[in-house]
Amino acid sequence: MNEVPIPRGSDFTLANLPFGIFSTPGTCPRAGIRIGDHVLDLAALASKRVFDFDAEVFSRPVLNDFIALGREVTDGARAQVQGWLSRLREGPVSIAELLPIGGVHMHLPVRVGDYTDFYSSIEHATNVGRMFRDPEHALLPNWRHLPVGYHGRASSVVVSNTPIHRPSGQIIAQGSRLPVFQPSRRLDFELEMAFVVGKDSTLGEPIDISSTDEYIFGMLLFNDWSARDIQHWEYVPLGPFLGKSFASSVSPWIVPMAALAPFRTSGPPQQPAPLPYLRAEGNNNYDIHLEVAVNETIVCRSNTRYLYWNMRQQLAHHTSNGCNVRIGDLMASGTISGPDAGNFGSLLEITENGTKGNFLQDGDTVTMTAHAGEGDRRVGFGAVTGTILPARSA
Amino acid sequence: MNEVPIPRGSDFTLANLPFGIFSTPGTCPRAGIRIGDHVLDLAALASKRVFDFDAEVFSRPVLNDFIALGREVTDGARAQVQGWLSRLREGPVSIAELLPIGGVHMHLPVRVGDYTDFYSSIEHATNVGRMFRDPEHALLPNWRHLPVGYHGRASSVVVSNTPIHRPSGQIIAQGSRLPVFQPSRRLDFELEMAFVVGKDSTLGEPIDISSTDEYIFGMLLFNDWSARDIQHWEYVPLGPFLGKSFASSVSPWIVPMAALAPFRTSGPPQQPAPLPYLRAEGNNNYDIHLEVAVNETIVCRSNTRYLYWNMRQQLAHHTSNGCNVRIGDLMASGTISGPDAGNFGSLLEITENGTKGNFLQDGDTVTMTAHAGEGDRRVGFGAVTGTILPARSA
Repeated sequence: MNEVPIPRGSDFTLANLPFGIFSTPGTCPRAGIRIGDHVLDLAALASKRVFDFDAEVFSRPVLNDFIALGREVTDGARAQVQGWLSRLREGPVSIAELLPIGGVHMHLPVRVGDYTDFYSSIEHATNVGRMFRDPEHALLPNWRHLPVGYHGRASSVVVSNTPIHRPSGQIIAQGSRLPVFQPSRRLDFELEMAFVVGKDSTLGEPIDISSTDEYIFGMLLFNDWSARDIQHWEYVPLGPFLGKSFASSVSPWIVPMAALAPFRTSGPPQQPAPLPYLRAEGNNNYDIHLEVAVNETIVCRSNTRYLYWNMRQQLAHHTSNGCNVRIGDLMASGTISGPDAGNFGSLLEITENGTKGNFLQDGDTVTMTAHAGEGDRRVGFGAVTGTILPARSA
Repeated sequence: MNEVPIPRGSDFTLANLPFGIFSTPGTCPRAGIRIGDHVLDLAALASKRVFDFDAEVFSRPVLNDFIALGREVTDGARAQVQGWLSRLREGPVSIAELLPIGGVHMHLPVRVGDYTDFYSSIEHATNVGRMFRDPEHALLPNWRHLPVGYHGRASSVVVSNTPIHRPSGQIIAQGSRLPVFQPSRRLDFELEMAFVVGKDSTLGEPIDISSTDEYIFGMLLFNDWSARDIQHWEYVPLGPFLGKSFASSVSPWIVPMAALAPFRTSGPPQQPAPLPYLRAEGNNNYDIHLEVAVNETIVCRSNTRYLYWNMRQQLAHHTSNGCNVRIGDLMASGTISGPDAGNFGSLLEITENGTKGNFLQDGDTVTMTAHAGEGDRRVGFGAVTGTILPARSA
């Protein structure tokens, strides 16, 4: 075999090569690169001393220490692997380090220090504002001036395939003014992408928007599960809390920004023009096709390029007050909706708050997929998926 | 010397013995216990093999692994030390392991996974609601039904004595509808206490309120620095973000719950009665005197017992949706105000939103102190202090 077999239509071409953490039965979690339907065992490869850095980092159960080596090293390692995989007979990679994906178990790829959730789709913010506030003033006054965001819960970020218990919480029953404690009846998904912070910053020192690319290691698919009824009662005045913190799911493979560079594109026009600290030159959005299926039915097709606020603006804003970021931090986009009903990224929007369809039922499986490009240039994220388990009995 | 000298009025009596992380010049951060004006070097003591558990945990730069040994071990270690310190000649502790506090540098005592901020003082919530909303309906409808809280930023939690840069951010100038980016002019403190989570819980499994005490390791003083003008513009609809995330300061010594047990007291009556999952038997508040000084002037005297929602209710609520907690997580109370103007725990309240006094000026030092009991039963927290540095120039 001179080349790794890559099935037609695979998300994981030689142009992609995302990083993740995997294990096989009886072995410890370690770093791998996905190629087609195989995982390249980087820890095993490292034992051949083929990397020109201390590749012991590949034996760790999270990617944080690898990412900490910096973009030059991580991009370099990926380029080396790209070369070896395309000329199997000549290079150090042998079939022994290529494990069939069916035999591996995937883990959370990074230790998440902090997780931040933004609200950067103008279509989503408008849809929500129209339903719950004045349709004439659906966007709040601050929305076009800054990328609105909030702190999420890091402990409950889980990897794709983790089953999700329906959460219970305080809910106001229809027609009542008093809450009851019961399982959520309005359980929803939110279609998001997240980026992984690739470099530590210093407390008290904002990251200038011109330097933000250095701090973005790669991207993931992100499902920000939401219990709308719990959220509705709790969220004033301090924002979402238990309506979100029961779980957030991420796809297992971090696609490095180097793989996504060919898909940079312009974003929507921003009116009014952002303040200077939020002005980024160049193409800062990404043309990534998104899809959501509930069980076998596709319920949403969207695209990351619809996002009004881009990742560079999110990061510049987040640190503009001196807040520091750390390697492994996740920053999620908020629900990525598009202009048409077929692009809505949550059941809240798709069902018009449950009036035209159901929220998630026990046993439902939500699967989100994402990819850019096609053929042997295709760079995909695989899937983030999760199945709803019944609420635990009290 | 048969007994460690403990200065009259010290917060750190034999009844206290809090845990912290310290270093001396040229040495690594490690665990210590504070006694009077000395720090007992637990890592040095451990090398004498006097503990009946693997005391290598005392050589780590955070207390998480020690806390993970469980309350039986950690309370047992503290009781052993208590015995040794009271009979210096007989036990293994010698003056060599007692370092004068003036010669040590204190560090953040735990690696904080997630930090949550509650809003549990009814006086504070009422004062804020009266200023910014309808004075007749100062409390929002959910407030008396659940301990309102939100996720804070873990990366910017710093130890006492860390200087605080005045943050910049988007602010609406008086009379304008458009934001400008400038240094905050309404920089404030918030007097809070926080508890440190002492046991991991499992995602999807709520902690029953009857078991919550097992999950609370100890308490800290907490200053939740706040930029009111940044917060005011950004916080709808997702809550506080950059108005808070530039820094939160904690006192260096974690006072274990065993030391605070004598000070348990009843809390304010709760009307309406909480839902069953929030009902805790017994005395669940703590009688801890609190004080805030700006420079040399005492601006607030309050007490932890004023809190409407107690720590057990906070933890039961936080996990009621299945959200997991991890050792080292911080849960802060929210500003602890009391019934009278002298008890207000923030300048927002003390100055009536800046109409009767100033917010913090560059060079101001805010010092919060806390203690329970008196004399040789005194259990104090020492101080959390921080000085405001000018905003960085853009």
